[in-house]
Amino acid sequence: MRNIRMVISYDGTAYYGFQSQPSGNTIQDKLEEAIKALTGEQVKIISSGRTDAGVHARAQVVNFFTASPIPVKRWCVALNSRLPRDIVILDAIEISDDFHARKSAKRKTYRYTINCSQVPDVFLGHMHCYHPRRLDWEQMRSALTYLIGEHDFTSFCTVSSLKENNVRTVYSATLTFEPSNLGEYEKLSGLIHIDITGSGFLHNMVRIIVGTLIQIGEGRRNASDMQQILHARSRAAAGPTAIAQGLILWDVRY
Amino acid sequence: MRNIRMVISYDGTAYYGFQSQPSGNTIQDKLEEAIKALTGEQVKIISSGRTDAGVHARAQVVNFFTASPIPVKRWCVALNSRLPRDIVILDAIEISDDFHARKSAKRKTYRYTINCSQVPDVFLGHMHCYHPRRLDWEQMRSALTYLIGEHDFTSFCTVSSLKENNVRTVYSATLTFEPSNLGEYEKLSGLIHIDITGSGFLHNMVRIIVGTLIQIGEGRRNASDMQQILHARSRAAAGPTAIAQGLILWDVRY
Repeated sequence: MRNIRMVISYDGTAYYGFQSQPSGNTIQDKLEEAIKALTGEQVKIISSGRTDAGVHARAQVVNFFTASPIPVKRWCVALNSRLPRDIVILDAIEISDDFHARKSAKRKTYRYTINCSQVPDVFLGHMHCYHPRRLDWEQMRSALTYLIGEHDFTSFCTVSSLKENNVRTVYSATLTFEPSNLGEYEKLSGLIHIDITGSGFLHNMVRIIVGTLIQIGEGRRNASDMQQILHARSRAAAGPTAIAQGLILWDVRY
Repeated sequence: MRNIRMVISYDGTAYYGFQSQPSGNTIQDKLEEAIKALTGEQVKIISSGRTDAGVHARAQVVNFFTASPIPVKRWCVALNSRLPRDIVILDAIEISDDFHARKSAKRKTYRYTINCSQVPDVFLGHMHCYHPRRLDWEQMRSALTYLIGEHDFTSFCTVSSLKENNVRTVYSATLTFEPSNLGEYEKLSGLIHIDITGSGFLHNMVRIIVGTLIQIGEGRRNASDMQQILHARSRAAAGPTAIAQGLILWDVRY
């Protein structure tokens, strides 16, 4: 058996998330179906981590074991021709047997994008949280600094998904503003990108962080509240969970 | 009656082009329906020019006459809430009666995007011509220079749409390469954007220019052939019509 490591992009809009479900309409199901169509094998795909319904991936990493003799260079083209248009394999390599897409991951980066223009983006609107009101980015950026380092992120985890150990390390958390290329129209300001890199993420962690940041940007909370929210270790202390479609798994490092 | 000038963006994927058709599934029909729902009036929208089925617009300009007393500042929000998600009004102003979106236009810019990576883009693939083979951009860029200036563009017009006067002026024609943000994967190179600004455009002019440029990029024609193709004044002298989905009406100036 060979261990194949693949990097994949997907637009999550049409899917019920990454992880296989009886309905079949998930990224994992589509990948496993394409591999079965190609090799006849029913493999089990391991991902760096699940993404929820509607969440996208720029460079998700997966691995699986196969007895197929297909040369590794052929996997991309052969699978892409068998996958729906909103899922593509960017890269496939053969890797040592001990590589595990989830357990071997060292750090992950997520990006969350907020469109704070007064009109939605017709081309990439399905990739944004549309929030047509002014946000104070400087306050939001300041709030992000409290997250950097090793913390118990219980306050930023869906209660039903809490585990024994909710300590994670955030290596970087940045906010960048991308002005609209239509900035000549006063209603179009641009996009706020929030990029967070960490050792691992709890369930809905980025979306709850962003929901809280939006409250800070709206002036309903102070940036320094972030510290108290962390200390509270209670989901109730944080803001709402921002919508899934603004979230993209950006990168996974090993 | 007031003359209203609006700037609109649309994703043309789902529509049979701009101009009204009995089927109703056009940008013009959707705009006129939204205005009727808002004001009760059946107006006639005038655009800077039709776009074909599948062609997109970043900033199309239209105008129409209305007796509605709705303040001009309200038009954007009021219409956007009545339009499908893939059509948005960016701006609306009241303008003098002699403004005509098509006749008053001084110059237009179109952008055509070719994805020459080995895998399609899952997020914006519906905005690209996917061409997963190497293209010689330097030759393509060189070919574009022959188009600048006043020329008879008969060779770059769908035969059935030829008019008495097929002379147009191209003010600029550039090619830029946007490297993929996933360039670490060898199969992903990036996007080629071709931007052409002119006094006006014949039917399919940009798409036939791009179809010819792709042949030049593939080495099947020389860049200098562009001059002979112009001189031939025959559609048969040029290359094929590139697919609609890579084309976007970028800007219209008055």
